[in-house]
Amino acid sequence: MGVNENVQKPLDHLSAALAPEMEAVNRLIRERMSSRHAPRIPEVTAHLIEAGGKRLRPMLTLAAAKLLGYDGPYHIHFAASVEFIHTATLLHDDVVDESSQRRGRPTANLLWDNKSSVLVGDYLFARSFQLMVEPDNMRALEILANASATIAEGEVLQLTAAQDLQTDEDVYLQIVRGKTAALFSAATEVGGVVAAGSPEQVKALFDYGDALGIAFQIVDDLLDYGGVTQTIGKNVGDDFRERKLTLPVIKAIAAADAEERAFWVRTIEHGDQRDGDLEQALRLMADHGAMEAARRDALDWAGRAKTALTALPDHPIRAMLMDLADFVVSRVA
Amino acid sequence: MGVNENVQKPLDHLSAALAPEMEAVNRLIRERMSSRHAPRIPEVTAHLIEAGGKRLRPMLTLAAAKLLGYDGPYHIHFAASVEFIHTATLLHDDVVDESSQRRGRPTANLLWDNKSSVLVGDYLFARSFQLMVEPDNMRALEILANASATIAEGEVLQLTAAQDLQTDEDVYLQIVRGKTAALFSAATEVGGVVAAGSPEQVKALFDYGDALGIAFQIVDDLLDYGGVTQTIGKNVGDDFRERKLTLPVIKAIAAADAEERAFWVRTIEHGDQRDGDLEQALRLMADHGAMEAARRDALDWAGRAKTALTALPDHPIRAMLMDLADFVVSRVA
Repeated sequence: MGVNENVQKPLDHLSAALAPEMEAVNRLIRERMSSRHAPRIPEVTAHLIEAGGKRLRPMLTLAAAKLLGYDGPYHIHFAASVEFIHTATLLHDDVVDESSQRRGRPTANLLWDNKSSVLVGDYLFARSFQLMVEPDNMRALEILANASATIAEGEVLQLTAAQDLQTDEDVYLQIVRGKTAALFSAATEVGGVVAAGSPEQVKALFDYGDALGIAFQIVDDLLDYGGVTQTIGKNVGDDFRERKLTLPVIKAIAAADAEERAFWVRTIEHGDQRDGDLEQALRLMADHGAMEAARRDALDWAGRAKTALTALPDHPIRAMLMDLADFVVSRVA
Repeated sequence: MGVNENVQKPLDHLSAALAPEMEAVNRLIRERMSSRHAPRIPEVTAHLIEAGGKRLRPMLTLAAAKLLGYDGPYHIHFAASVEFIHTATLLHDDVVDESSQRRGRPTANLLWDNKSSVLVGDYLFARSFQLMVEPDNMRALEILANASATIAEGEVLQLTAAQDLQTDEDVYLQIVRGKTAALFSAATEVGGVVAAGSPEQVKALFDYGDALGIAFQIVDDLLDYGGVTQTIGKNVGDDFRERKLTLPVIKAIAAADAEERAFWVRTIEHGDQRDGDLEQALRLMADHGAMEAARRDALDWAGRAKTALTALPDHPIRAMLMDLADFVVSRVA
């Protein structure tokens, strides 16, 4: 979700370590995204799935299962399920956000239409549940069903919280857990469950995915404002223009005096934005150390992710997951 | 979907026979449509769920289970799941069709926005899977996951088949099975599975739901053109204006000469519709006996539904399901 998946290097190591499994996941995805009756479905899906996403989430499932010594075959099904849920969510997100670009290409809602994006998203969501049924593991199914509900709830919450200056860090965290972390934590947890990990191991895997997802989203929100050093990143200020209440803005608003508050009310709540407002927003966030504080939060969540891993067996995959947590925040470290 | 659920009388009998169970279903629906974090969700859902739908689909699940002597508790969960899937589909349909009215009230996409309809639909879909997990019945879960995929596939197929004069009766049947009959047949089949019916009984229940759903949709498509006698029904000609290829039109096109074909190409394929075109379409359908032939198809499917029931135990509920099949087609009989 709106996250720049620029987590190349540790993912390359994971990709290499999990190459045969990822190959099987990709095969299963291609097989199941087809439709006997409606060729529009694989067209739309291929546009997104072949667009070179990093497959981060299915990789987390494979990594978690392998870390606990599981050798298959059902981590493949759950990994593909996770990617289908992710793809379905992207299709619906682009309709909701009226986006025109995703992964550097025009979005499906632009290439076809919103109708196709809504319905193909529904199809992939249903396909993900079909995939989940096959391994006959009700606990794993429950985890992914719960994650799906949490994702949708987080998205609705984001919709209603948008432009509402009452949105505080607790609400922000709920939204982030929903829209990003829920699928990360389900991906790792389900890998642990399919591997028949102990309750402690499964809990540790959940905690890792949860903290990693939160760190990931905070970093993305920071990069939207150019990052702490304002050197990296995509177009600066998209979130400001879309009046999204992300962590650095929430922190700046919490510390605002009356005059500053009036600025946020005008620009975010009323959407009355003028030349120089983005620069002023950046200045206010800098004055209150909001970017720096959000950066510390991201590092803190990355630290929690690594701490969670200590409860898991010493294994090359574990070291890669440690690196991944560092790498996610390296863009703002 | 898009179906006028005017199936009052036999549904009243079923409602009375299943009153305590329906009460439990309604309780469960109200409980599960809530959201701790996002009040928008129950607002949107209540708008639709409290709008007085007939609860036909969950009733079919309860009836199937009871007919096989099942006394609970899990038919309640599956019945509520079925209604959640149906409601999610309605929310997404209204976005796809850009509808402004449903059950005589403004649609959710009009009252709130398309975003809310998409995301709340996703939420209800996820909630339906959470509900399905609880009874710990993987076979029942599989049936509903498969139905969900078939529904979405049917909707995409309808989207791509719209305005395409190549659409023949086979494609029509696939679309109808997807958008309407799949949930009817899943509703009855799952009731049989939860009641631990024999394979023959479960198959009979599936066949009943499938045939009932097809009859239901053909009747709805006929009524859109005013029915065979053109006395009943809603606004005549909505499907024509939306250039939908429903059964009577498909039959008229199959029998068209060159000049008539040019009419259908202009009005349906090119969407160039003028005053008097609807009347001309009705005339062509009458000339070729297309309405009458579609009506015979509907009666035939109702007959198949009743035949399927003969494999099931003699039971007051069975008699009501027989009546229901007759009643569905009574609007055109």
